[in-house]
Amino acid sequence: MRLVHVDRSADDHRIKDLNVSTRLRGDMEAVHTRGDNANCLTTDTQKNTVYALAREHGVAAAEDFGLLLARHFTGEHAPVHGAAVELQEFAWRRIPTAEGPHGHAFVRSGAETRTAVVTADRGGEWVVSGFEGLTVLKSADSEFRGFPRTRFTTLAETDDRILATDVTARWRYVAESSAPGRAPQAADWDAAYEQVKALVLEAFATTRSLALQQSLYAMGEVVLRERADIAEIRFSMPNNHHFAVDLAPFGMDNPNVVLHAADRPYGRIEAAVERDDAPDAGRAWDSVPGFV
Amino acid sequence: MRLVHVDRSADDHRIKDLNVSTRLRGDMEAVHTRGDNANCLTTDTQKNTVYALAREHGVAAAEDFGLLLARHFTGEHAPVHGAAVELQEFAWRRIPTAEGPHGHAFVRSGAETRTAVVTADRGGEWVVSGFEGLTVLKSADSEFRGFPRTRFTTLAETDDRILATDVTARWRYVAESSAPGRAPQAADWDAAYEQVKALVLEAFATTRSLALQQSLYAMGEVVLRERADIAEIRFSMPNNHHFAVDLAPFGMDNPNVVLHAADRPYGRIEAAVERDDAPDAGRAWDSVPGFV
Amino acid sequence: MRLVHVDRSADDHRIKDLNVSTRLRGDMEAVHTRGDNANCLTTDTQKNTVYALAREHGVAAAEDFGLLLARHFTGEHAPVHGAAVELQEFAWRRIPTAEGPHGHAFVRSGAETRTAVVTADRGGEWVVSGFEGLTVLKSADSEFRGFPRTRFTTLAETDDRILATDVTARWRYVAESSAPGRAPQAADWDAAYEQVKALVLEAFATTRSLALQQSLYAMGEVVLRERADIAEIRFSMPNNHHFAVDLAPFGMDNPNVVLHAADRPYGRIEAAVERDDAPDAGRAWDSVPGFV
Amino acid sequence: MRLVHVDRSADDHRIKDLNVSTRLRGDMEAVHTRGDNANCLTTDTQKNTVYALAREHGVAAAEDFGLLLARHFTGEHAPVHGAAVELQEFAWRRIPTAEGPHGHAFVRSGAETRTAVVTADRGGEWVVSGFEGLTVLKSADSEFRGFPRTRFTTLAETDDRILATDVTARWRYVAESSAPGRAPQAADWDAAYEQVKALVLEAFATTRSLALQQSLYAMGEVVLRERADIAEIRFSMPNNHHFAVDLAPFGMDNPNVVLHAADRPYGRIEAAVERDDAPDAGRAWDSVPGFV
Repeated sequence: MRLVHVDRSADDHRIKDLNVSTRLRGDMEAVHTRGDNANCLTTDTQKNTVYALAREHGVAAAEDFGLLLARHFTGEHAPVHGAAVELQEFAWRRIPTAEGPHGHAFVRSGAETRTAVVTADRGGEWVVSGFEGLTVLKSADSEFRGFPRTRFTTLAETDDRILATDVTARWRYVAESSAPGRAPQAADWDAAYEQVKALVLEAFATTRSLALQQSLYAMGEVVLRERADIAEIRFSMPNNHHFAVDLAPFGMDNPNVVLHAADRPYGRIEAAVERDDAPDAGRAWDSVPGFV
Repeated sequence: MRLVHVDRSADDHRIKDLNVSTRLRGDMEAVHTRGDNANCLTTDTQKNTVYALAREHGVAAAEDFGLLLARHFTGEHAPVHGAAVELQEFAWRRIPTAEGPHGHAFVRSGAETRTAVVTADRGGEWVVSGFEGLTVLKSADSEFRGFPRTRFTTLAETDDRILATDVTARWRYVAESSAPGRAPQAADWDAAYEQVKALVLEAFATTRSLALQQSLYAMGEVVLRERADIAEIRFSMPNNHHFAVDLAPFGMDNPNVVLHAADRPYGRIEAAVERDDAPDAGRAWDSVPGFV
Repeated sequence: MRLVHVDRSADDHRIKDLNVSTRLRGDMEAVHTRGDNANCLTTDTQKNTVYALAREHGVAAAEDFGLLLARHFTGEHAPVHGAAVELQEFAWRRIPTAEGPHGHAFVRSGAETRTAVVTADRGGEWVVSGFEGLTVLKSADSEFRGFPRTRFTTLAETDDRILATDVTARWRYVAESSAPGRAPQAADWDAAYEQVKALVLEAFATTRSLALQQSLYAMGEVVLRERADIAEIRFSMPNNHHFAVDLAPFGMDNPNVVLHAADRPYGRIEAAVERDDAPDAGRAWDSVPGFV
Repeated sequence: MRLVHVDRSADDHRIKDLNVSTRLRGDMEAVHTRGDNANCLTTDTQKNTVYALAREHGVAAAEDFGLLLARHFTGEHAPVHGAAVELQEFAWRRIPTAEGPHGHAFVRSGAETRTAVVTADRGGEWVVSGFEGLTVLKSADSEFRGFPRTRFTTLAETDDRILATDVTARWRYVAESSAPGRAPQAADWDAAYEQVKALVLEAFATTRSLALQQSLYAMGEVVLRERADIAEIRFSMPNNHHFAVDLAPFGMDNPNVVLHAADRPYGRIEAAVERDDAPDAGRAWDSVPGFV
């Protein structure tokens, strides 16, 4: 469901724009086998709950709101044993005017979508933050050589190719000293998000790439080094091929200047970078689609 | 990658139209940490391999072609330990003409997309068949009552609602007596597919629904009863809400005649129906996205 | 807006599933320049009107329902001078069961979407019927030769290529003897639709194609020959390229057997086929997007 | 077709990322009626031409590249009478690093897509610039009152609603003193683009809205006032409804704080704002889809 929350408590409004999905597990045998709905918390009730809790508590970071919801669903209704809340957040910024940033007029910004997945059950709580759709490209400092040649290999080796991908990343927080069964807590979810995104971008930019896999690993390594509260980071990155067009038939050279951007990603790299001493992931990744 | 294969060996051509995704696992540490690509079978080579094997062996059922590819990738290249091949198949039928069905002119047919996921590693082979996007609707014989009422529940109980969903189903085959580590084998993948689809449709149509969950279970139960070679079937089904429009302000009643089809599915039901004596699933579901 | 209408008057229900868009023209200067909304029939009212008229009159063919709406909007509200109603219709068929086709359980069918655009103003009424997304392919009897060669031409001539396209067609009806300003009337909109679709498919199948443009013309010509009540038919058809994969590096030939289906249509052919004596199109095409 | 051009002439690379569509008109009767392709400039040749001209001349602003292509196609090949070139441009910015903006690593930026449509034939040249997908929202200063009430009106009047839309805008340039038949020329296409976008955003932010139509008019008026070289600007803007959720059943008020963002835009406002003394539009709008 799409939830927009406007904090009107100050003259300058603040907006949060979220897609919220809730997923409950529990004693659901009767509803499946006999159509007995006594344990089935309806989606309509779940939807109303999201709206009402947003009104009662406001909406801070996506991770905080996810924790609020996950604890509510597992705490309030006995047949529900576990809850997973997935959130997507769309960023807005104030419209600039002659008098400065406007107080209640906004324009959607940013290319990537911020994500959070909060999972809770009787044994614990897990927070996975991330983003999707961060599209990046390097026009130099990327090579691809030394791969095996089978009878079906035609690809030429190259020491100068275009490297482009859409980064989807998700990282799992650990608590430094959390009470048993309570969520890990970043000092500041928003600041952590901005730092991880900046680290990933800079690592992509400054690593001479020998393979997209190696760029991925470098991006993960720097995040684990700089953030002690992150135990593991996972990436899913298609290889957005940009091929130099063959202009020789027209008597022209083409040193990676005119490129054909292929629509279909032929390769997708997925991998996790995890600390050697990372605590067990528990249910953290249970609701995360399409990952390693 | 999109592969179209035309069997031109007879006067009447036959076409297979497939999306094929391959996913390999293996010794990939060096490429990630050192950019050493010696073990990295490039996506370009994988793509060429799919084309070349299609030419060498033709394309029978999606499941057969998936097995062919999975065995090739795990058998030919030592650092590759396992392979998963996902296939989508788009159906075509011959264009009817005054002289009967045309021999080489086709029109795309069918609403649903057939799927197959074949997984292989050194320990075994697994085949999961399925379809996605089979959209169904019942305009009677559906009720929804007896659900719990919390302080956030507003939904009224009903003994006459519209029930609509898009069925995604995936089922896992077992061999009755297969050689160790060889794939389960349906007598005929195409016939099995048509039978499962027909059983699912008929169960949806003829079950008086007390909840979408209960319809789901009925659909799974009949498949397991009729097909001894299927160990488990999983469904993912959104609840495509159709609300009766309130026409009372205009002096009209509306006994579920004029409906507003809401765009956003507020609920999605996912569940597996498995035989009590089903063998272990192994890696069958490893590459299946978004399922229970 | 999405409207689903269930005719429950007989034991066997009948359903109509439509996307309806209404577009009004009229005296709208005050609302734009002064924010005076006195002439502005709100979209909320338009939406309610569609629902209420569906309840009052039922929903017959899409064209009939479009005429009903267009006449209502131009007749009931003085500042509105003209109305265009665009409709998309999604087909359903009864689910087959052991007892025959089910009375109130349906499965979505058909690949193509039926369309209708009805335009009305004080001077007349126009009906344009059509479909979109009818995907067809010929694996033989298609060539492409004799095109001009410029300094940028590399394409080889061929007398055997795969021809594939997604046909979007729209045709304009004329009245044989209609009262002035009244809509043209097909004897039976549904029968006319099925006949045009069948004619288009058969012409595609049986014409040896020298160019997609020539196939298009043949498809239009047969429709005008067989239906005296159609004045003009327009097509928009991308050229869905299917290239034979080069397998020579692997020592294999490939006589159009293994094909790469390119995602991006590089060419789109749009043309109208009109009778020499066709009456003026009036406003028939005013609301039709993306056509010649 | 998707064209990426990397200008590597300086240490800091510059990239242009464009979707380019070309559309030619001319003597095409023979190809349609007889399959005689002698006048048919193939799409493959058109594609090659775009790549080759990008190599020969580089890619400056989208408008410049469109003019280059349109002039080429109408000048080089006699049977082609006219050409329309549609371009979409995707923005990238340099990745920030500790050493400053990176010289050859980029991240996709911006929410909106820049567009240009250049049309040329023997009689003249026309340039239409624009953008699509600029999503904006006002959480105050928007009302909607005084609209007509019919028997199907239920909407309440309001003096405080959320106003949100996705702005698509296209504007037509005029030459102040151009040679006959030559394109209008903005002093600087890029600067003009940034100015128009900023004017549109500020007008949306600072206009107290009585109707979306009135906001639209205010946005167009300021552009025509500030840019003498723009004759007309057109908008297409859906009304992205954000409804306050009814929380009264849970004992809560909701003064536009918790909002349900409806997926489907029920209304779309399209209008042109044109100077009184604007020159004739000629073929400027011929290829512009979905506009007034």
